[in-house]
Amino acid sequence: MLEVTVSDIGLDRNTNSPVVILRERDGARILPIWIGAAEANAIAMELKGVKAQRPLTHDLLKQVIVGLGGELRRVVISSVKENTYFAELLIRRDDHVFQVDARPSDSIALALRLNAPIFTSDQLLDESGLQTDEPAPDPSLDADKLKEYLEKMDPQDFGKFNP
Amino acid sequence: MLEVTVSDIGLDRNTNSPVVILRERDGARILPIWIGAAEANAIAMELKGVKAQRPLTHDLLKQVIVGLGGELRRVVISSVKENTYFAELLIRRDDHVFQVDARPSDSIALALRLNAPIFTSDQLLDESGLQTDEPAPDPSLDADKLKEYLEKMDPQDFGKFNP
Repeated sequence: MLEVTVSDIGLDRNTNSPVVILRERDGARILPIWIGAAEANAIAMELKGVKAQRPLTHDLLKQVIVGLGGELRRVVISSVKENTYFAELLIRRDDHVFQVDARPSDSIALALRLNAPIFTSDQLLDESGLQTDEPAPDPSLDADKLKEYLEKMDPQDFGKFNP
Repeated sequence: MLEVTVSDIGLDRNTNSPVVILRERDGARILPIWIGAAEANAIAMELKGVKAQRPLTHDLLKQVIVGLGGELRRVVISSVKENTYFAELLIRRDDHVFQVDARPSDSIALALRLNAPIFTSDQLLDESGLQTDEPAPDPSLDADKLKEYLEKMDPQDFGKFNP
């Protein structure tokens, strides 16, 4: 298992879908994961330190874990099948540790809120990652366009962050 | 406090926004609440009994509560300020009960998954509700249009239910 960090989020100009970029902590590989609008908003708001007027779903998830005495130990981006990524949360309470299946987007939004590390496998980075030391590896990201996209989608709770 | 149930969900033709309708259990008043796309999808999928390929955020929230030994006792739609609704979850674990602020949409999506009752106040129903025994009280709802709207928004995880 290798630790990755959230390196960037934006709207992929080619697919017009939000994408989050994970970056190998001790290496040059990145892993782009295409995600939904609500989860992109949750990740972007946390990265920018912006609070919503009402708790968003991932803020609620955090409060529930904390209120129940749980601790998010780590998030693992575990596999990819037909371009769909799968992940797991590892949660501890007292001496009991349990695992919950999740989407990578939810896992990342929650890991950022609870300062938990994000891991993936060497194999997944090799097969689905990109080398940043080769020319033009990044998907064509646009942070401003993500804000516009999210505001249009849900003016009540989305797109309040400043990219 | 009065119990309400989820009576309908659809796309409001006037505002082009998803709306969920709560109905007084022992009375004739309804409470329409305009909600976001992701939460509308979470509510609609649960109402239709459709499972996503990967757990959606509210499925994850449910698994986390269950895994940590918590019990969702009830949801309360507590207040409305400038057309924005606020809600609270009441969660119990052993002898400890705590309250978490939430959006009504998240609260409803979770209450349906955990078979928890939904309450609101007589005052809120009076001030923001509609009488169903008067002519044409409902917002102009369209269930098919909601499905279309959600599929367009997030083809990967949304709009898989049959309205």
